[in-house]
Amino acid sequence: MSLPSIKLNDTHDPELRSWVESANADGCPFPIQNLPYGVFRRAGGEERFRAGVAIGDQILDLQAAWAAGAFSGFDESARKAAHAACEGATLNALMALDAAAWSALRAALSHALRTGSAHQRELAACLVPQAAAEHAIPAHVGDYTDFYTSIHHATTIGKLFRPDNPLLPNYKWVPIGYHGRASSLGVSGQQFRRPVGQTKAPDAETPTFGPCKRLDYELEVGIFIGAGNALGEPVAMDDAEGKVFGLCLLNDWSARDVQAWEYQPLGPFLSKSFASTISPWIVTLEALAPYRCAWTRAPGDPQPLPYLDSPTLRETGAIDLQLEVLIQTRAMREAGQAPQRLSLSNFRDSYWSVSQLVAHHTVNGCNLRPGDFLGSGTQSGPRPEEAGSLLELSGGGKQAVTLAGGEKRTFVEDGDTIILRAAARRDGLPVIGFGEAAGTVLPARSLP
Amino acid sequence: MSLPSIKLNDTHDPELRSWVESANADGCPFPIQNLPYGVFRRAGGEERFRAGVAIGDQILDLQAAWAAGAFSGFDESARKAAHAACEGATLNALMALDAAAWSALRAALSHALRTGSAHQRELAACLVPQAAAEHAIPAHVGDYTDFYTSIHHATTIGKLFRPDNPLLPNYKWVPIGYHGRASSLGVSGQQFRRPVGQTKAPDAETPTFGPCKRLDYELEVGIFIGAGNALGEPVAMDDAEGKVFGLCLLNDWSARDVQAWEYQPLGPFLSKSFASTISPWIVTLEALAPYRCAWTRAPGDPQPLPYLDSPTLRETGAIDLQLEVLIQTRAMREAGQAPQRLSLSNFRDSYWSVSQLVAHHTVNGCNLRPGDFLGSGTQSGPRPEEAGSLLELSGGGKQAVTLAGGEKRTFVEDGDTIILRAAARRDGLPVIGFGEAAGTVLPARSLP
Repeated sequence: MSLPSIKLNDTHDPELRSWVESANADGCPFPIQNLPYGVFRRAGGEERFRAGVAIGDQILDLQAAWAAGAFSGFDESARKAAHAACEGATLNALMALDAAAWSALRAALSHALRTGSAHQRELAACLVPQAAAEHAIPAHVGDYTDFYTSIHHATTIGKLFRPDNPLLPNYKWVPIGYHGRASSLGVSGQQFRRPVGQTKAPDAETPTFGPCKRLDYELEVGIFIGAGNALGEPVAMDDAEGKVFGLCLLNDWSARDVQAWEYQPLGPFLSKSFASTISPWIVTLEALAPYRCAWTRAPGDPQPLPYLDSPTLRETGAIDLQLEVLIQTRAMREAGQAPQRLSLSNFRDSYWSVSQLVAHHTVNGCNLRPGDFLGSGTQSGPRPEEAGSLLELSGGGKQAVTLAGGEKRTFVEDGDTIILRAAARRDGLPVIGFGEAAGTVLPARSLP
Repeated sequence: MSLPSIKLNDTHDPELRSWVESANADGCPFPIQNLPYGVFRRAGGEERFRAGVAIGDQILDLQAAWAAGAFSGFDESARKAAHAACEGATLNALMALDAAAWSALRAALSHALRTGSAHQRELAACLVPQAAAEHAIPAHVGDYTDFYTSIHHATTIGKLFRPDNPLLPNYKWVPIGYHGRASSLGVSGQQFRRPVGQTKAPDAETPTFGPCKRLDYELEVGIFIGAGNALGEPVAMDDAEGKVFGLCLLNDWSARDVQAWEYQPLGPFLSKSFASTISPWIVTLEALAPYRCAWTRAPGDPQPLPYLDSPTLRETGAIDLQLEVLIQTRAMREAGQAPQRLSLSNFRDSYWSVSQLVAHHTVNGCNLRPGDFLGSGTQSGPRPEEAGSLLELSGGGKQAVTLAGGEKRTFVEDGDTIILRAAARRDGLPVIGFGEAAGTVLPARSLP
């Protein structure tokens, strides 16, 4: 583990404990080894959104913590820059710093929140219970790019359309991606109306207009870009992770019937631009360093072209991160039933790694800016039950999934809440959780 | 002409003259009937960018003009809002106002710049020569969407790939569009390195990596969104133009060989995200009102679905706007030769109108924000010489275009400058010009 982002330091020590007691509970998603960033305010109030760090069941208010003088370990200019970067209503300024600055702030947070911290008393006054908070999108997203990195997803979807030739010839060479819609990104808790649009049945002469009948979720990992690169200056593989601020969860809701009719020849458009739900917390790559693993390549797969290759990253380019989808239907909610799991997969099965996405995205000179957002594409595993969308789980809508209460789903129905969760786990190490990306579908607008 | 945007008023009077004498010259692109908006500063200085209006060969500094008290015709709250909206380094705040506010500001500008204006003396001090100014992108672009509205372009491109079936079945029903890249938008004068990327020859087993060999331009009209709409609230056809602040020119540079290898199944990505060049001036829909004309539909074409239809707009939905592409090669520049025309087409030949793009884009609930940007797609006319790209003019790269000096082009070469121009013309009316969108290709970066 020779790359900066893979080095371990004392913030990763599994024995560390926090004076925030809830952070030490077994399986708590936000132990002191995690320290993810988000923006928050007390729910229902008039406060402005501000930067915070999740610790146990609390949020440390970063502006208040800086004001309390609780952070040490910076030289004077670095302290000023880090302090200023935490003052906004978004994390863009913090993202615009570099990996060394992010690491210094993480170290300061870790020391301040440890048992025995000299600043416990002041910092205790800077905590807000997560249960009392609401969140916003943590950054202004300049551009949102969605990739297609799961070869299992691409193969299963391809089989639905081309049984004999499921995977297109470019897949193992090009990290396929397309531009997404930034304006309709929302944070966990997002509710949105079922989209309306044009669809055409395969046997129909002409299209019809109405509510989407094949509404789906997509289980994705979201990637927030940090400092980025100038237009015309590609990012090399071994520099790529230094451009990544951290990861979150993303549900890239999809109107499959709209998509099928609109997507030739320029790709998905209205089928994806009505809502995309992200989790409020951004888990840094540094927090995920102990959970790195080798790239997935099968025997016979081509080696990546040199601009997408790195001997070091072949061994550490992937992240062992469990990804889970759950559903809570309206009936389940009304009966007080907990959400039910639909699938479990793992980000380590992604064919293309985070570094490869950054290197590919910029190889033509395209500039990434602080706060730009990448989606990994739907993360499906090699087994059918590991599929990250209902389209896959239901075999293209042909075999309904039966839920515990007897309800059936081929696609998402009005009133359904879809919840994404993620956790990095390794024996002897704490769980690094992501919180949730939950979104609920409301009925379509009544048509004129 | 019963829609607000099609009503004429005294700002359209062809007899109007300005005390800025250059605005009255025959064929001047910026007569007093035009009044396009941009952001500018004196070239080479340290000034910040600010809002301006082109008049003749001058720019009226809007902040200075407000400070000089030169605008009348507002009630007090509208005056405050309009004044505040002109104070930023971008036009987003002005765009966020509504069509009535834009119209009031246009009327005030028209009165202030007319011969006989009581404010001539103060305003003369607020002029900056265009030749002494430099420009920036006039708005922060939240999202950039590129459409595909020219049926002639779509048919010609389709023929290159599918001679027997050039136009896909969705074309006459769906205004095809996709998300573009906002970060690489640049203003006229943009210079960029030839992009590098993966390509695969049709007969090759594996892809290769290197500079793009089929670099092309695309002649497009750009559309800046004004007030926009809330997520989940579609914009109806007859409200759509009230959401549009104005039009400019757009060269959506394209790496055709990269595009061919990468675009299945999710559409163009790196082939379009290295540079897109726009003109600095935004011409308002109100300035273009006298140049409206009927939609283009051929006998047998389906009528648009109701959400894309409007009886009024059938007669006035299109804009009679000449579009021109010119080239100046390095050799031409060094020999002091003027740019040479490559093609001339007209925006009135677009199959889908501006209103239809806005209505379609929002029908699924997608929100448009002030400053969001739409591209029309390449505007090719019905005749081969009216093609808006070299890919079309050269028959897919097979028949080189011969330039006046004997040089030949199948695609754009290093050192070439491509210049887009536009003008609305009608007998008895002044010319409404757009200025230029010029961009120059530099050699690719040397590869490691």
